[in-house]
Amino acid sequence: MKRLSQLSGLCVAAIALTAAPALAKETPPVSPETQYIFNTLLFLIGGFLVMWMAAGFAMLEAGLVRSKNVSMQCLKNISLYSIAGLMFWVTGYNLMYNGVDGGFIGSFGPYSFDPVGGDALDTGYSTASDWFFQMVFVATAASIVSGTLAERIKLWPFLAFVVVLTGFIYPIAGSWQWGGGWLSEAGFSDFAGSTLVHSVGGWAALAGALILGVRKGKYGADGQVHVMPGSSMPLATLGTFILWLGWFGFNGASQLAMGTIGDVTDISRIFANTNMAAAGGVIVAVILTQILYKKVDVTMALNGALAGLVSITAEPLAPTVLQSIIIGGIGGALVVFTVPMLDKLKIDDVVGAIPVHLIAGIWGTLIVPLSNDAASYGTQALGVVAYGAFTLVASGIVWFALKATVGIRVGEEEEAMGLDKVEIGVEAYPEFGQGSQRL
Amino acid sequence: MKRLSQLSGLCVAAIALTAAPALAKETPPVSPETQYIFNTLLFLIGGFLVMWMAAGFAMLEAGLVRSKNVSMQCLKNISLYSIAGLMFWVTGYNLMYNGVDGGFIGSFGPYSFDPVGGDALDTGYSTASDWFFQMVFVATAASIVSGTLAERIKLWPFLAFVVVLTGFIYPIAGSWQWGGGWLSEAGFSDFAGSTLVHSVGGWAALAGALILGVRKGKYGADGQVHVMPGSSMPLATLGTFILWLGWFGFNGASQLAMGTIGDVTDISRIFANTNMAAAGGVIVAVILTQILYKKVDVTMALNGALAGLVSITAEPLAPTVLQSIIIGGIGGALVVFTVPMLDKLKIDDVVGAIPVHLIAGIWGTLIVPLSNDAASYGTQALGVVAYGAFTLVASGIVWFALKATVGIRVGEEEEAMGLDKVEIGVEAYPEFGQGSQRL
Amino acid sequence: MKRLSQLSGLCVAAIALTAAPALAKETPPVSPETQYIFNTLLFLIGGFLVMWMAAGFAMLEAGLVRSKNVSMQCLKNISLYSIAGLMFWVTGYNLMYNGVDGGFIGSFGPYSFDPVGGDALDTGYSTASDWFFQMVFVATAASIVSGTLAERIKLWPFLAFVVVLTGFIYPIAGSWQWGGGWLSEAGFSDFAGSTLVHSVGGWAALAGALILGVRKGKYGADGQVHVMPGSSMPLATLGTFILWLGWFGFNGASQLAMGTIGDVTDISRIFANTNMAAAGGVIVAVILTQILYKKVDVTMALNGALAGLVSITAEPLAPTVLQSIIIGGIGGALVVFTVPMLDKLKIDDVVGAIPVHLIAGIWGTLIVPLSNDAASYGTQALGVVAYGAFTLVASGIVWFALKATVGIRVGEEEEAMGLDKVEIGVEAYPEFGQGSQRL
Repeated sequence: MKRLSQLSGLCVAAIALTAAPALAKETPPVSPETQYIFNTLLFLIGGFLVMWMAAGFAMLEAGLVRSKNVSMQCLKNISLYSIAGLMFWVTGYNLMYNGVDGGFIGSFGPYSFDPVGGDALDTGYSTASDWFFQMVFVATAASIVSGTLAERIKLWPFLAFVVVLTGFIYPIAGSWQWGGGWLSEAGFSDFAGSTLVHSVGGWAALAGALILGVRKGKYGADGQVHVMPGSSMPLATLGTFILWLGWFGFNGASQLAMGTIGDVTDISRIFANTNMAAAGGVIVAVILTQILYKKVDVTMALNGALAGLVSITAEPLAPTVLQSIIIGGIGGALVVFTVPMLDKLKIDDVVGAIPVHLIAGIWGTLIVPLSNDAASYGTQALGVVAYGAFTLVASGIVWFALKATVGIRVGEEEEAMGLDKVEIGVEAYPEFGQGSQRL
Repeated sequence: MKRLSQLSGLCVAAIALTAAPALAKETPPVSPETQYIFNTLLFLIGGFLVMWMAAGFAMLEAGLVRSKNVSMQCLKNISLYSIAGLMFWVTGYNLMYNGVDGGFIGSFGPYSFDPVGGDALDTGYSTASDWFFQMVFVATAASIVSGTLAERIKLWPFLAFVVVLTGFIYPIAGSWQWGGGWLSEAGFSDFAGSTLVHSVGGWAALAGALILGVRKGKYGADGQVHVMPGSSMPLATLGTFILWLGWFGFNGASQLAMGTIGDVTDISRIFANTNMAAAGGVIVAVILTQILYKKVDVTMALNGALAGLVSITAEPLAPTVLQSIIIGGIGGALVVFTVPMLDKLKIDDVVGAIPVHLIAGIWGTLIVPLSNDAASYGTQALGVVAYGAFTLVASGIVWFALKATVGIRVGEEEEAMGLDKVEIGVEAYPEFGQGSQRL
Repeated sequence: MKRLSQLSGLCVAAIALTAAPALAKETPPVSPETQYIFNTLLFLIGGFLVMWMAAGFAMLEAGLVRSKNVSMQCLKNISLYSIAGLMFWVTGYNLMYNGVDGGFIGSFGPYSFDPVGGDALDTGYSTASDWFFQMVFVATAASIVSGTLAERIKLWPFLAFVVVLTGFIYPIAGSWQWGGGWLSEAGFSDFAGSTLVHSVGGWAALAGALILGVRKGKYGADGQVHVMPGSSMPLATLGTFILWLGWFGFNGASQLAMGTIGDVTDISRIFANTNMAAAGGVIVAVILTQILYKKVDVTMALNGALAGLVSITAEPLAPTVLQSIIIGGIGGALVVFTVPMLDKLKIDDVVGAIPVHLIAGIWGTLIVPLSNDAASYGTQALGVVAYGAFTLVASGIVWFALKATVGIRVGEEEEAMGLDKVEIGVEAYPEFGQGSQRL
């Protein structure tokens, strides 16, 4: 809704100006040309901040897997970001944004940017900047899958899945809302993607986890859960801070315009609310793990921050500061309670991406009507269910097809040896830890 | 001074415009609306750059402590950043900026942002963007304390101190100058916070170090200093580069306005001067450690960069390039000479935060009159003493109260084992170094 | 060409406005003052993004050298960035940009910024912002040298070379093109520095590698190549992501203006093309190493990204998306094929900087005419040869002079022990790997 109405607003402004030059005695406070520059600049700044989140996911996952699988996570993350860019150009953007018209899917074909020195005012921003900004969102969705399925999935089937996810599943699902499709017309509301980006990534990860199976040795025959601690907490922390930073672009630039006082004020509110939701997630996770486990779990604090961020993403503008803290805080609590629940269900999510992106994404989407009168709880629930059903089924089909053909899981011995030796040939830390035994 | 006069200037401009629309034949070169957007954008960009410094402190400290305490430093840094945000909203901002009127303290109560789509021109920028920008500065002050007291302080008392520091001590001290309080009226000058942020953090760290005591084994009975090398130089280097990057926001956006040619030109000067002061700090530290120790100490080079940055922060605009290099270079030299001095005084500062933030902060504040005629050496000294006395006393009271009640220090055995095992339960590098003995 | 013509355009705009205030009935869509702010802001944002690349090189190199030389790479990178800033102020900027007038060199002497509150409109941007933006490019060139010569070069001779490179060789070479010198008049085209920055750095590295010699034990007597794996793949990955992020500033802000719709649209195209070239480099490198070696080499994927970025840097604006992917993809392929070739030639390039920056830089420069009609293959080749000859000879002279006087290489025993112990005195990971043997 936001995206469409915003675009319409811009078009109206531009048309009004070109249509009525004779009346232009009262100069508009910010000229359409200046607005165009501000809007485009917003996409560029927002875009490079969200691009930077690819590094955040890479570091988070590199820190949360064991050292024998770290090179693989690094490779997967830089590869998936590259594939996301390629596919969102080849098919993604047009599937998502062109000619959806209240329907379920856009049009096929690669996307074309403005020409060099393009000076058409009508869109209100450069189309290349919009493409860049939307593209980095796709990569985020793919990164979520990478973390959950770490330490046992084969490289190439994973990359094949990324091709389908970023070129087809994500854009088709996205067209329903941001492309002006049926959910948008039904009144669904998802400002920056709690559902469209994070839950979609989470559902795809969940489908993969169910079909791929758990890591060897993760769950004992007696129902015991064997902790497999990540290799580097500082890298996981770095990744979380990178993601937190990138989220200012993720949510802030989803305002989609910066050429009026009202828009830039809204972006400022979004920055502040986004930050406070993350802070709330951290504080709740820290306090809860202290109470529950008598020790503070740093990985829970990190995931608490991320859950807070995911929770506020569906509506980072309307809430008050206090509402933002509470929304994010509940997101943090959901992580603390969901992580052990997944273990009980024997769903092996290596980095906790399902609690963070799927569960908190659902929570954030459902709570939008608390602060945004234009949304209704029913329609929000409808959207959650629709995205869940579609993504689970579509992803499931792809995972099953890959499993049935090329296979998606490395052998038992290879899993024990670590993916770095088996598939990458470059160990992450050849002189340390297990690697150092070679020296 | 800068902050207040800046704000007044903006108000005057806005008022002039609203008061005299009839005369508005000569369009101002940049409309007030466009200025508002530029000013707000400056706060947002500056804000996310300074927010990123939280990651810088986390990496710097994670690199400079031993591996058995790395998870703890990660947790402390993400927690303190979260608490700073919360407290600067609950009490901090209004204590610092509302109704100080030449006095010693502002008003109590949470801060309110502009409404959604707010279009009031009178402030000249979005209040939420200003809050966000000022909030990330508070976090910086708290980060300084975290580094000095590492490896032996308990988690929860540390976090309790952060609550008081960010919610009360920092904002009250800040109100004296940036809030338009008594020191501002006395003519004190501190552009971006050599004293208000860095020295305040440094004094609080010093008070804590004195009351907390030294790490077990750091100083031998014979007066010998036992070096306890940090766990990861690349992480410490990364942290320093992050802080250097963030400092462009810290100093540059402290210009507080970007809507005129003069303002954006000043921001450019500040970028260049800030960079050159840091460069001067590095070069001097590298040369001095080579001369003194026949080897270059990389941690000194890193702290030299930071000391250069702290030194130029009180006045990054007025100096020439050469003056900036010299101011920063002397900051670097101060670090090289102060680190061993602290060891002689048996003040155990794990990461060198007191030399970098307190000593260089004092130096930078005192040297302002060299390039800024509006400042006087006497008033600068008055400000340094006033901030030192208040922060030492206020912090000291809090530290003593915490020590007397819950205790602030872990037990001897726990210190030897490392805080990660004792309080966090998640080791930073479970497969490497000491951790690998478990495998 | 770009830089000069751009500047002229700005001047004309500014002059037109000041010369004809009487005619100013038709307000220009973006006032010259607003343009000045946008242009300066572009330099500042671009500048801090490129400054951040210094951290990227530091992490990339820290990850690709063995742990016994990591502190040294960290120190070299922060030092060279500092020296680059100093020298580009002392001599560099004026040698490169002042009074070149179609010739081979500019003028001598330090550079002066605009005064505080400077309000001269004639340049169209703040001179300090331009200096800052150009300065961070010099540092990039110096970083390239640091990686190739790692693990065996002495610290001080390396830093001495950096002084000459950043203060003289780079600026003089740069004056030929961006300073408006003879190559610019001949019609050479290098938008953001495939040749001026990356190849110059690469040629200087090659000269150094030839004169310095290979690491002990790298090449067996039987012609076998001994792999010396880097110490940390996640740090190398982080470095690559940092460089990728910084490249949006590197290429995007090389548009040099953001005050018109056409300019900001071009910057958007540049962002998208830059991203897609890097993506192409990754995808090609991943596929090729899988085919050639039956395993994917993560270091090749990282270098593939960088080679894609270098390849598109000479012309990131004119290509279509597909052309950008192909240009970057071929860059990635060149890395995969050139790395073993260098080993056959027994040129020991520790991090692969010569394939990435020199070879891909040549490729990117030569292919400009494919998309840019204003360029010709002949002149592009002339430029490549001219820069190669000058940089090789000038760098060679400096390396030989350093070798003949102070010596540039550490002793055999010191090389085996690692530079960190010998020259830095601070080990990178004292508790891990080889360091942990001490505990």
